[in-house]
Amino acid sequence: MLAYGWSSERSAPALRDQVDGALASAKWHGWDAICADQKAYLDDFWGRADVEIEGDGEIQQAVRFAMFHVLQSAARAEGRPVPAKGLTGSGYDGHTFWDAETFVLRSLTYTTPSAVRDALLWRQSILPLARERARVLGLQGATFPWRTIHGEECSSYWPAGTAAFHINADIADACVRYRFATDDESFELEAGLEILIETARLWRMLGHHDLEGKFRIDGVTGPDEYSALKDNNVYTNLMAQRNLQAAADAVERHPVPAAKLGAGAEDAASWRDAAAAMYVPYDETLQVHSQAQGFTRNQVWDFEHTPPDHYPLLLHYPYFDLYRKQVVKQADLVRALELRGDYFTPEEKARDFDYYEPLTVRDSSLSACTQAVMAAEVGHHNLAFDYLGEAALMDLHDLEHNVRDGVHMGSLAGVWLAVVGGFGGMRDHDGTLSFAPRLPAALEHMVFRVTYRGRNLRVSVDHQEATYVLIEGLPMEVTHHGTVTKVTNESVSLPIPPHVKRERPQQPPGRAPTRRGLLRA
Amino acid sequence: MLAYGWSSERSAPALRDQVDGALASAKWHGWDAICADQKAYLDDFWGRADVEIEGDGEIQQAVRFAMFHVLQSAARAEGRPVPAKGLTGSGYDGHTFWDAETFVLRSLTYTTPSAVRDALLWRQSILPLARERARVLGLQGATFPWRTIHGEECSSYWPAGTAAFHINADIADACVRYRFATDDESFELEAGLEILIETARLWRMLGHHDLEGKFRIDGVTGPDEYSALKDNNVYTNLMAQRNLQAAADAVERHPVPAAKLGAGAEDAASWRDAAAAMYVPYDETLQVHSQAQGFTRNQVWDFEHTPPDHYPLLLHYPYFDLYRKQVVKQADLVRALELRGDYFTPEEKARDFDYYEPLTVRDSSLSACTQAVMAAEVGHHNLAFDYLGEAALMDLHDLEHNVRDGVHMGSLAGVWLAVVGGFGGMRDHDGTLSFAPRLPAALEHMVFRVTYRGRNLRVSVDHQEATYVLIEGLPMEVTHHGTVTKVTNESVSLPIPPHVKRERPQQPPGRAPTRRGLLRA
Repeated sequence: MLAYGWSSERSAPALRDQVDGALASAKWHGWDAICADQKAYLDDFWGRADVEIEGDGEIQQAVRFAMFHVLQSAARAEGRPVPAKGLTGSGYDGHTFWDAETFVLRSLTYTTPSAVRDALLWRQSILPLARERARVLGLQGATFPWRTIHGEECSSYWPAGTAAFHINADIADACVRYRFATDDESFELEAGLEILIETARLWRMLGHHDLEGKFRIDGVTGPDEYSALKDNNVYTNLMAQRNLQAAADAVERHPVPAAKLGAGAEDAASWRDAAAAMYVPYDETLQVHSQAQGFTRNQVWDFEHTPPDHYPLLLHYPYFDLYRKQVVKQADLVRALELRGDYFTPEEKARDFDYYEPLTVRDSSLSACTQAVMAAEVGHHNLAFDYLGEAALMDLHDLEHNVRDGVHMGSLAGVWLAVVGGFGGMRDHDGTLSFAPRLPAALEHMVFRVTYRGRNLRVSVDHQEATYVLIEGLPMEVTHHGTVTKVTNESVSLPIPPHVKRERPQQPPGRAPTRRGLLRA
Repeated sequence: MLAYGWSSERSAPALRDQVDGALASAKWHGWDAICADQKAYLDDFWGRADVEIEGDGEIQQAVRFAMFHVLQSAARAEGRPVPAKGLTGSGYDGHTFWDAETFVLRSLTYTTPSAVRDALLWRQSILPLARERARVLGLQGATFPWRTIHGEECSSYWPAGTAAFHINADIADACVRYRFATDDESFELEAGLEILIETARLWRMLGHHDLEGKFRIDGVTGPDEYSALKDNNVYTNLMAQRNLQAAADAVERHPVPAAKLGAGAEDAASWRDAAAAMYVPYDETLQVHSQAQGFTRNQVWDFEHTPPDHYPLLLHYPYFDLYRKQVVKQADLVRALELRGDYFTPEEKARDFDYYEPLTVRDSSLSACTQAVMAAEVGHHNLAFDYLGEAALMDLHDLEHNVRDGVHMGSLAGVWLAVVGGFGGMRDHDGTLSFAPRLPAALEHMVFRVTYRGRNLRVSVDHQEATYVLIEGLPMEVTHHGTVTKVTNESVSLPIPPHVKRERPQQPPGRAPTRRGLLRA
């Protein structure tokens, strides 16, 4: 038996006492009891969260591998951040980034919400440093660090660090989602309200109204790391819009605690106004949204003359060139389609997805899973399965040749998102839980389980129908392919409507994902 | 007597021999002969280049101080660059920048053209390194370094260094101007043609045609150092337009030498097409040109809440904030109005100048002189005189508290530009030498001399009229306030037309230049 302790604050004797205590407790319980404890914990997890896939044994195994690692990275974080590599390696120096909220916490919200609560309480604990950082930058509210362990900004290249302000809206979004999925009002009063208010203050000052009354957020960096310092990045503006609106709603729900945080009706009104006036660039000629203002008028990267061994591009081309051309490292506008799916029409989503596919090289592990979700939504189910395969095998097949540094927690969490958000079509927009399940040709059957407001919902999907049943908890309503349905502890099966097959979009030459779905279909 | 030699290439004995030789020669000539030689050289210079100012003795002295230093920095450069501080100090590590061409060489072109020839031959000598740099960046042609001594790029912060590609058009522009002012065809064949071709190749690849057929140059940095990585900076695009057009014209003039450099009719046609299609952003609502695309929709800097001791802004505010707001460190669009005055209508110039005045903080010594020239052109003559005062006293009054590092060669050269370009209204657009002299209230009389194609032209200006006479050389034509006039060795006096007085624009609070013109008026 081995115990390990580390602290930057406690004395060596105190640390030693803790380790001694852990060892003594372990000995007292004995090996078998520890194993039984661990097994019970995991049985409980798989019982409420397992994803079953029929038709591709490798993917089945990879999905469980992913879910296990994500759970392990966060379940006992207890007031500490979830690092980009979890506890599996020294990659990224143990730092945490925006993918903790946007990928890891998103999957845990519906499987292990207590870990989400812990992780967001950690964010609240670094608010004093985030406020100080905002002051240094001449801003109001708080600005969370792009990469950190302890709360200070640890990114030294500001165009791709500090300027990526969207992390603040990502954290706010995680608070909104956690509240939606758990109805945990105590969290809102303890932490969520404060995070929402401080981030809303940031956005209100970071943006401004232009002559025509539009609210613009200029000179920031979105999720795509092959762009920087752009005006009106769609993802950033739409996530800030949700942040501002959610903060106003939270102040309205809790006027007295909000007043203690210095936020009142005038603040809420000002945030609502900014949210309502948010500018979202759209290219009328091409009929697609522009990742950021002007993007669709930039030159398209010369993919044809880019040799296969020149990927990832960042190792072979200067940033001056990447930043000024239409080339996308990782889903950015497409991530907006997913996270702010409530903003876009189905036709816009389809056109936007198809426009960005030939520009997206996936030089980041944080891309395939998002593309999987949106490919499925717009009707490219076999392509979605290819992307799920890429996300799921990223580390198991060492696709980025860096698994020695640890596994990619964001990508692994994205595997769950790709399955449940992609083939399950689960969305949590507009205060409702909705599903639009549809399988790729390669799969025969799929089951997933969702924890939601004290309930455990089991969804079983084949090519003809989806069956919903509550394993635990009171009856609830869900939306199935647009139709509201009551779900109880007795199964209800609903047909999967037929869908119009659309032409598979092209990726940049040589950058198509391995064809898993099509080959098996 | 003391001699000094330095070389990075020659052996110590060779260097010692050179120094010994210099000392022996000096001794042989003797002190008096050396002094007489120096005096003769300077008498010749002042005879052909002196600027006389009546009405402000301090400015008179400062103008001569400036001209002397500029001459000293370049007259014996002989295949070496002109550093930003000349030989007067260690500021900028002895590096040369774009202001060598855009300020220093511009004034020397009409006073000491032989020094301009030398300096441009130096640029040609570093073409191999500039070509290599272009290859590293994945570009064609050559890209000159933002800061250098020996030819390599020495700027480490690429958004404000390498990305400022306009330096290439600035060098090309200096070649075009030198040829115009001297008719020195041998220079074009020796160096100018090659520089023009290589820089045109760069622009052709750096830009691209968009869907509507406009030629766009995205993701570059213009002269204003409070902006970076913008699409379609007006100054850059218009200077590139001139560069492309001039290269095509040079290839047409010299098809055989051009063919040896690999450039033919198809290249020239492609450069002409790009030049003709050049995109220049204009804000239809505000009726002004946008420094770069989107600039006029960015938030205006909060000048009201910027304390006086927070200038220069770069020492007190993060670049993330400067880059995304309407705040101008040094004339950028206004410099385009000057250097590409042929592109703009008089009304556009007036509106543009007045728009950028309240945004321009002059945290750079390279701003006041350009603002002086354009203030005079659009009718703010007293403001122009204030700016001349600032440029002229930059070092004598140590306005930037850094004269210990050496004097500002760009600003000193700008003094000559402010006098001759501003109050003399001299322009060299469209292959003609034109003047539009008009004095500020504070001055009674002004005389300047211009060297032009083997001639020496003396222009004498008071409030009623301007008198032109050739001191040397064959009769020529000049334009005086729009009217073509023949000038010979007999004086011709022409009336100064009345002008409409316009309201003086505001500068940012606390950033107005010291009121020299108005107080004395």
